[in-house]
Amino acid sequence: MNIPHILLTNDDGVDAKGIRILAELLSNFADVLVMAPDGARSGAACSITPHTPLCYKKKSEYSRIQVYACSGTPVDCIKLALEQFPDFKPDVIVSGVNHGDNASVSVHYSGTMGAVLEGCMKGYSSVGFSICDFSSDADFSAIGIYVQDIVQWVLEKGLPKDVCLNVNFPKNDGDSYRGIKVCRMARGSWTSEWYEAQHPAGKKYYWLTGRFVNLEPESVDTDMQALENGYVAVTPIKVDMTAHHVINELKELEKL
Amino acid sequence: MNIPHILLTNDDGVDAKGIRILAELLSNFADVLVMAPDGARSGAACSITPHTPLCYKKKSEYSRIQVYACSGTPVDCIKLALEQFPDFKPDVIVSGVNHGDNASVSVHYSGTMGAVLEGCMKGYSSVGFSICDFSSDADFSAIGIYVQDIVQWVLEKGLPKDVCLNVNFPKNDGDSYRGIKVCRMARGSWTSEWYEAQHPAGKKYYWLTGRFVNLEPESVDTDMQALENGYVAVTPIKVDMTAHHVINELKELEKL
Repeated sequence: MNIPHILLTNDDGVDAKGIRILAELLSNFADVLVMAPDGARSGAACSITPHTPLCYKKKSEYSRIQVYACSGTPVDCIKLALEQFPDFKPDVIVSGVNHGDNASVSVHYSGTMGAVLEGCMKGYSSVGFSICDFSSDADFSAIGIYVQDIVQWVLEKGLPKDVCLNVNFPKNDGDSYRGIKVCRMARGSWTSEWYEAQHPAGKKYYWLTGRFVNLEPESVDTDMQALENGYVAVTPIKVDMTAHHVINELKELEKL
Repeated sequence: MNIPHILLTNDDGVDAKGIRILAELLSNFADVLVMAPDGARSGAACSITPHTPLCYKKKSEYSRIQVYACSGTPVDCIKLALEQFPDFKPDVIVSGVNHGDNASVSVHYSGTMGAVLEGCMKGYSSVGFSICDFSSDADFSAIGIYVQDIVQWVLEKGLPKDVCLNVNFPKNDGDSYRGIKVCRMARGSWTSEWYEAQHPAGKKYYWLTGRFVNLEPESVDTDMQALENGYVAVTPIKVDMTAHHVINELKELEKL
């Protein structure tokens, strides 16, 4: 069997621990091309850079890992890598491991998952990994076997059309994870989001913080519930955001 | 009846023609609070600003339109306005009019629709407007009656839970629009996205451009098809991105 090709990015930047760990894990069974932002792009979502020219440069090269840093967003990284390295045809596109979870509605804000959606929109099997640990020195020691099993399963079976995977790991509390749960996104919302501060000259400014509220804490089939119970949460995410279930109801608008 | 309250933002920036036109149209029947980016944030998607403090300032005030400019993204604008103006309880959140369409997969990259999704996640009825015309002097002369009818319909009926509207107008070619079609997102993809240029000192850089490809040009129920045929395209968009239809199939992953 030919050795698989994996294109890897993230949103914490090319030097983050999460992407370095992930590149090493993937290089056990694949050739890895890293094209990642040259610094943190947390909360970048699917954002792109239409009004500023981008550049990229080689950071390092190992036997199975080439590393490039790009001045753009995670989505820019995927778009640029696919056109700049046409001979490196990815068998799967991977993003992460994000420092901090991307469960529930955080998918919408996540640069990690933005890159995964971009890969999916381009027709590639795409998988994002995140861990419920915001520390820059997060403990990734329990993820190895899960990363390998999930990515190899995807390499072997493929993913349904226009569907990608959002994989979240619980924070490592010393026990091993309890297994994998396939989930749906929990309904949730962020609240109390701003921390007001004052510039020495008197002007007010605002830091985005906030507290996540799970709006369905009793539901047993959500990503939040799986994570709380020590499972690796795998949520299939689709490109089509149409609310098909309300189209008939909204046809009334056509009579305006 | 009390006069409705509308919170308005966009991603082209507070001085763009599209948001000025929209504020005026909405002020015919509502009090309008504008909190919009202080410059262009095209392609901002649902991005947020976690690592830089934000500020905002009053730009102008008319009898029914207050205008504030914010240093953040469209999503930041919605989050900030809702906490900074707790007495201005929006009956609907509106975004746009974007200069350029946000049909098909462009929803994922759109800062206009990012703000709309944010409003929706916060439980507000939310509507985004865009026009298939990238010109900074785009012709909005045909949109007035549609904006009014759609927003008033939403004010009266509300929207289904966790669903928002993505409204796209055809480019104005002089004829009036043919009416409203309620649609689904077309499958589509961007291709040939980079324009390579050279810095005078020799280094290469890359501008994001690209060409959109409608992957289902024959389908009659898509937003792209409606726009091509001169209709105003209204696409309901949902917060839940879970690919529910493949969850059972993916349960195989739980056995890894």
